[in-house]
Amino acid sequence: MQALYFKDGQLLEKEMDRPRPSRGEALVKVHYAGICSTDLEILRGYMDFTGIPGHEFVGTVETPRSLAGRRVTGEINVSCGRCELCRRGLGKHCRERTVLGIDGRDGAFAEYLTIPMTNLHAIPDSITDEAAVFTELLAAACEIPERVYISQSCRVAILGDGRLAAMAAQVLRLKTKELTVLGVEPDKMRVFNELGIETAHTAAIPSMQGAFDVAVECTGSRMGLPDAVSIVRPHGTVVLKSTFHAPLKWNPSKVAVDEITVVGSRCGPFEKALGLLKKKKVETEPFLTAIYPFLKWETAMRRTRKKDAFKVLLEMGS
Amino acid sequence: MQALYFKDGQLLEKEMDRPRPSRGEALVKVHYAGICSTDLEILRGYMDFTGIPGHEFVGTVETPRSLAGRRVTGEINVSCGRCELCRRGLGKHCRERTVLGIDGRDGAFAEYLTIPMTNLHAIPDSITDEAAVFTELLAAACEIPERVYISQSCRVAILGDGRLAAMAAQVLRLKTKELTVLGVEPDKMRVFNELGIETAHTAAIPSMQGAFDVAVECTGSRMGLPDAVSIVRPHGTVVLKSTFHAPLKWNPSKVAVDEITVVGSRCGPFEKALGLLKKKKVETEPFLTAIYPFLKWETAMRRTRKKDAFKVLLEMGS
Repeated sequence: MQALYFKDGQLLEKEMDRPRPSRGEALVKVHYAGICSTDLEILRGYMDFTGIPGHEFVGTVETPRSLAGRRVTGEINVSCGRCELCRRGLGKHCRERTVLGIDGRDGAFAEYLTIPMTNLHAIPDSITDEAAVFTELLAAACEIPERVYISQSCRVAILGDGRLAAMAAQVLRLKTKELTVLGVEPDKMRVFNELGIETAHTAAIPSMQGAFDVAVECTGSRMGLPDAVSIVRPHGTVVLKSTFHAPLKWNPSKVAVDEITVVGSRCGPFEKALGLLKKKKVETEPFLTAIYPFLKWETAMRRTRKKDAFKVLLEMGS
Repeated sequence: MQALYFKDGQLLEKEMDRPRPSRGEALVKVHYAGICSTDLEILRGYMDFTGIPGHEFVGTVETPRSLAGRRVTGEINVSCGRCELCRRGLGKHCRERTVLGIDGRDGAFAEYLTIPMTNLHAIPDSITDEAAVFTELLAAACEIPERVYISQSCRVAILGDGRLAAMAAQVLRLKTKELTVLGVEPDKMRVFNELGIETAHTAAIPSMQGAFDVAVECTGSRMGLPDAVSIVRPHGTVVLKSTFHAPLKWNPSKVAVDEITVVGSRCGPFEKALGLLKKKKVETEPFLTAIYPFLKWETAMRRTRKKDAFKVLLEMGS
């Protein structure tokens, strides 16, 4: 099969053997794989990953036969199921875990992938492939109100105008009337505005000190955390979503002085995300920037890096 | 009156006019002033403070006459009482606030200080001056379980073996049976051990990854936060207590990946602290390193900076 393989700092196209599912695993033929900021960080060295990247996918089960033909997406953390964390329901944090396309497990930038059947989620017929490939990202957004209580009058800022911000904004506007997306790109801001979501330019951050009860950091950049901390009020909450390879130079004293809470948040509930997609509570189409055939993967990566890009997909087997 | 005055990076002894209390303020004759890590940070430039430092004190009210002779200590944040934060009960975060000896208000390294009467707490007769001067520090420790739920089986680490760690350890051992203080100085660790508090050397931190449910950062140093984050389990909690002048170089990705919560915590409830001192639930005497007469303030500062020092007091008017 065709795949993208990352090794020693280089991503290369490679002809590889089709993976063989282990016991309990399914073999999935990938239709679309989404390109995520984490993928770009991996190509910069994050997680010291070697293998096939890619963790957002929609595809069809090939084996086992009992599931064959099912359209699926899948959770990315593969845990041992036996350790203390797994037994406490924190399987996504299992220390023995592998993570699809991120840590110790080949991912979705390939014609086929393998994944435990327990990680799979069937996609309702009403959800298109092009929407379903947003499930993993939308689930990460759904995790935010699982971790932080957000009332209707809660003043919430989302820092970032990218893919995750797009999903977070749509999830959080179901919770609060007081939502602002802080971004940079006029073209992206327009898309948010067209959905009725208020935006402001990040240049205004210095004048927004303490203006929000909650700031959700979705920038993918190092300065997201300091910016988020700066705009929440005393006793406010910052949700930290971004992971990155390079360290940050920052004085966190304001967290102590203003008694701010910083809540780290990563993967979220797939069933909630699929529920929102099914009920059309969240739009994906305005955030689908481009679909490239697999062989155009270099163009797709370049497109993803452009400032005006939301989600870029690779169409596998094409 | 005699006072210590900090200006342009220099702390100097100075003969000053006795301060005049404003409306609603008391004039307090200071008996003891405690030297705190925040004071040392102020001398390094933290808060760009100019004036008389010092915020831990015990003294006797001189005026108004209605309170004259009362032995008191006092809360350090002086808020406007009118703004949104004050009305929400977050007066200690009032944006118009001054902070005794830290921000815009002369402090306790002087024979007399002024402070709003509403900030004062009368000291029960059974609490000595030498114990009462720990009230502010102990209140900061009492704030920890106000912000984070700690159960009896919660595995708690305190990072730091200093003054605040000493108070935090005694407050938190009332909550959990699983407490470890991570320190460096053998002489200090011995004092903790003599009180029945378990200790370990910070050199063991690399082998403690994910070993704790809660880590309370009381190091006063920049590396406290990264260390604390490293030793809590996924979904664990870090309490950040330290404030410092110089920035930190750090990659906070683990906070997002492991979905850790970082809770900033500063000043706490004086009435709880005084209650613990009155009921002898917390010991201060083993942590009182030295008392110096005011004129020996330079020696006192040097003594505070030594690695084996817990609390050093200045005896005012002596």
